[in-house]
Amino acid sequence: MNTLEQIAANRSFGGWHKRFRHRSAVLGCDMVFAVYLPPQAEDGPVPVLYWLSGLTCTDENFMQKAGAQRVAAELGIAIVAPDTSPRGADVPGDPDGGWDFGHGAGFYVNANQAPWDRHYRMYDYVVDELPALVEARFPVTTRRAISGHSMGGHGALICALKNPGRYASVSAFAPITHPADCPWGEKAFSRYLGDDRETWKAWDACELIAATPPDGERLPLMVDQGDADSFLATQLRPEQLRTACTLAGQPLTLRLQPGYDHSYYFIASFIDDHLRHHAAALRR
Amino acid sequence: MNTLEQIAANRSFGGWHKRFRHRSAVLGCDMVFAVYLPPQAEDGPVPVLYWLSGLTCTDENFMQKAGAQRVAAELGIAIVAPDTSPRGADVPGDPDGGWDFGHGAGFYVNANQAPWDRHYRMYDYVVDELPALVEARFPVTTRRAISGHSMGGHGALICALKNPGRYASVSAFAPITHPADCPWGEKAFSRYLGDDRETWKAWDACELIAATPPDGERLPLMVDQGDADSFLATQLRPEQLRTACTLAGQPLTLRLQPGYDHSYYFIASFIDDHLRHHAAALRR
Repeated sequence: MNTLEQIAANRSFGGWHKRFRHRSAVLGCDMVFAVYLPPQAEDGPVPVLYWLSGLTCTDENFMQKAGAQRVAAELGIAIVAPDTSPRGADVPGDPDGGWDFGHGAGFYVNANQAPWDRHYRMYDYVVDELPALVEARFPVTTRRAISGHSMGGHGALICALKNPGRYASVSAFAPITHPADCPWGEKAFSRYLGDDRETWKAWDACELIAATPPDGERLPLMVDQGDADSFLATQLRPEQLRTACTLAGQPLTLRLQPGYDHSYYFIASFIDDHLRHHAAALRR
Repeated sequence: MNTLEQIAANRSFGGWHKRFRHRSAVLGCDMVFAVYLPPQAEDGPVPVLYWLSGLTCTDENFMQKAGAQRVAAELGIAIVAPDTSPRGADVPGDPDGGWDFGHGAGFYVNANQAPWDRHYRMYDYVVDELPALVEARFPVTTRRAISGHSMGGHGALICALKNPGRYASVSAFAPITHPADCPWGEKAFSRYLGDDRETWKAWDACELIAATPPDGERLPLMVDQGDADSFLATQLRPEQLRTACTLAGQPLTLRLQPGYDHSYYFIASFIDDHLRHHAAALRR
């Protein structure tokens, strides 16, 4: 039986924010994640929004800064926020000491290159191991939604695109839309996945959209992007996502938000819209 | 002319969160403060809520974690968040290395004991110097409200009680209600103000309430306090505030919030109510 060690509990909007430590078999290390349980969870199981954070984040950034609990409490949605990479002294980090690879930068893929393949399997953790744990131990249903920011926006998109039927809805804030063709993604993918760029396509939202079969699931994508985001042109490139969606007949709502940057002030300004988008789908 | 150096600007709920560095003549050091300007400030001056944070905080904690911008933008209120003490290598800190005195712990008093009296004059900074700067340089009116958390709740209460007519409204989250009679307050006051406890009364909410003349201003006090706050019994002691208010005929709304702790999750859960309380008074 997987042991969950509760390391924090804070009352929040009539519900609870809690943090837990557990041993991840998939990642081969201890992991911390956070859960927001809305008041409705005391009366019966509620659906879950999985939130994937961006580079350098832990489970705490979103829970402390996004202001999501108010509307989650109104709508009766739990939120689960995992960490952004495996952690610990045994887990190799960026040999160059960078913040865009290794610890805090798991990129939500399954690495297949040594030494990364031993621990860096965030995709399996986020899609399978963590939901199985959450669904076994918390008052939640198997109705799931997924969202995230930046690297986590990329993560949310690929998790949904690779798993038809697993998520009721997906959205993203300032996602890395085409990691196979931007500096952050190329650095991470070349190490985690090796030099064969053909294998990268299985972990790239634009490529996955292009590869969706004609009768495949096409969950509407909701994406917010600040037009004053300093990473817009070099790393995020929402126009590539728009092109891929147009070519593939993939429904996309891409909102360019004037003056907004890459910070949590941007996320907080629009998180209500995303929660309502997910709630509508989770209810169906 | 006082120079304001802008060090950050983030679009937030249609307005702007900005941070500035300036030279404080009162404190004898450089200081950073944050401003939230709601969208209405583009059309004309708006009233200001001053927010005073608690021990160890800077201007950033409230702006990042309280989720106040959404309702401030709805109501058309600016928020100004100063730091919690003078800062810098020239400013002496706690000789024992504690976090409850010195840097991050100015207690919103004017120190009169060496070496603290050179820099630790947060009361004059918060009541006079900072509002004068803000009112000269930002699109704001002279309608002011004040609120804060813990040490900052104490600060908000004494600033309002000591300055009839200066604030339209006051509120506090988990304030140190009677610093002259709790460990945090006794440590800080004995150093900043010396051993004569009679002089402490001018900086203590309960004493100020007791000393208000019969015809003095009695601004209604709005206070939220979590009943699971680990500092409740030893440091905060809201029952002392209740007794002082009852004896003095001072209007008080004291809400004990079941299960809530001392964290920003507590503040975020109830900040909307406080903003609406202030907006109603600022409109009058």
